[in-house]
Amino acid sequence: METLFNHRSIRRFKAKPVEEDVISFVLEAGMRASNTGNMQAYSIICTTKEDLIRELASCHFNQPAAKAPVQLTFCADFNRFSKWCRQRNAEPGYGNFLSFLVGMTDALLAAQNCCIAAEEKGLGICYLGTTLYKAEEIISILDLPLGVVPVITVVMGYPDEKPELVDRLPLYGVVHRERYHDYSEEEIDRIYEEKEALPLTERLIKENGKDTLAQIFTDNRYPQELNEDISRTFLSILAKQGFMNNGK
Amino acid sequence: METLFNHRSIRRFKAKPVEEDVISFVLEAGMRASNTGNMQAYSIICTTKEDLIRELASCHFNQPAAKAPVQLTFCADFNRFSKWCRQRNAEPGYGNFLSFLVGMTDALLAAQNCCIAAEEKGLGICYLGTTLYKAEEIISILDLPLGVVPVITVVMGYPDEKPELVDRLPLYGVVHRERYHDYSEEEIDRIYEEKEALPLTERLIKENGKDTLAQIFTDNRYPQELNEDISRTFLSILAKQGFMNNGK
Repeated sequence: METLFNHRSIRRFKAKPVEEDVISFVLEAGMRASNTGNMQAYSIICTTKEDLIRELASCHFNQPAAKAPVQLTFCADFNRFSKWCRQRNAEPGYGNFLSFLVGMTDALLAAQNCCIAAEEKGLGICYLGTTLYKAEEIISILDLPLGVVPVITVVMGYPDEKPELVDRLPLYGVVHRERYHDYSEEEIDRIYEEKEALPLTERLIKENGKDTLAQIFTDNRYPQELNEDISRTFLSILAKQGFMNNGK
Repeated sequence: METLFNHRSIRRFKAKPVEEDVISFVLEAGMRASNTGNMQAYSIICTTKEDLIRELASCHFNQPAAKAPVQLTFCADFNRFSKWCRQRNAEPGYGNFLSFLVGMTDALLAAQNCCIAAEEKGLGICYLGTTLYKAEEIISILDLPLGVVPVITVVMGYPDEKPELVDRLPLYGVVHRERYHDYSEEEIDRIYEEKEALPLTERLIKENGKDTLAQIFTDNRYPQELNEDISRTFLSILAKQGFMNNGK
């Protein structure tokens, strides 16, 4: 279990390609994850060809991590399952929002299993959340049909850096016993105290010319207008890919 | 790595409670999972009190698994983060659909880490997808405030059964190399061949009085009308919990 506690996201990789048997091991581990009703309502696109990686990297703002030798795009997928239903005299009813959430759930649990298996094999991994931002472009590059929506990308390869472990909030800041206990002002102060005292925080505030760490999130990294813009786009993609037939 | 490949969902548990140090280990492992921008946009409600477990179990159709001694309800949570922003002179813009998806992603990756850590410690786990079906009731039972939506439940305890490993589709049925290659009729037949040949499949078809396994999914387990009904309800819950302010 060292693996779980030693996880760091890796953003710089050696040129060395990942062996096919290692890739298969990682993918097989993903397939063993729990999934909804054993429908396995997801697909994994495993991309290793340079020209395609370059195209995908541009969807992920060409961040260094996006140049990793293996890219796994995890998709909610009711295309395969619905095709099977139709071929078996059964009428599939999975063109709705719940089914998208089910597929997204299955895809993410498989993704996390893949990451753990990869790290066990000495690979480094990084999640790219930008998949939600550029879903339309990714759909086009990867030829995703109706019933398929990309939800997250995992890049992997042999690490070419050894970053420090990243901070986390204290356990009591994230876990609630029995019921949710909403946070008082004092509790919020206490939960974020350690993070705010980090040298990294001081550096970021200086670099970004801000007063607080929180402002870097709200003004620069995850600003409201961008969030709202992507929200509207993603909802329209869900409709286009056939996941918003929610009945009357 | 045995753990990943030996996973079975456990639905019957011994009465023996789970030790507090084991629970903490499991939760700490969850916290180490990758998350979006290190915002940790999720909360975990850890419920062990009998009366609350009983209330929650009724949301999960009183299936045997829902009587496990520990219930972890994983929630997308931008309440804590937004409170912190406001206390730090930053205006949070996380009341939108993208932010819900971000929180759901963070919650699910943490959930899978918790499951693997639990199994390493000899516990059995089961995911309850019914959390999406009964989100409104769960919000009420667990006092979830604005900005918090439950997305999945993991129950755990010491196993009181030893089920067989469950089948999965062949790897080539789920993984696409480079790009998505849509399925031909023959490919669908081949991908589902092994599953359809299982004794379990034969038994289920007989028990349910159906012609094909697919019909059990479309007619009984995940029928269109129910899917659409839950889709509408869940979208309205997202709005009620403050995640549908998507701008103009």
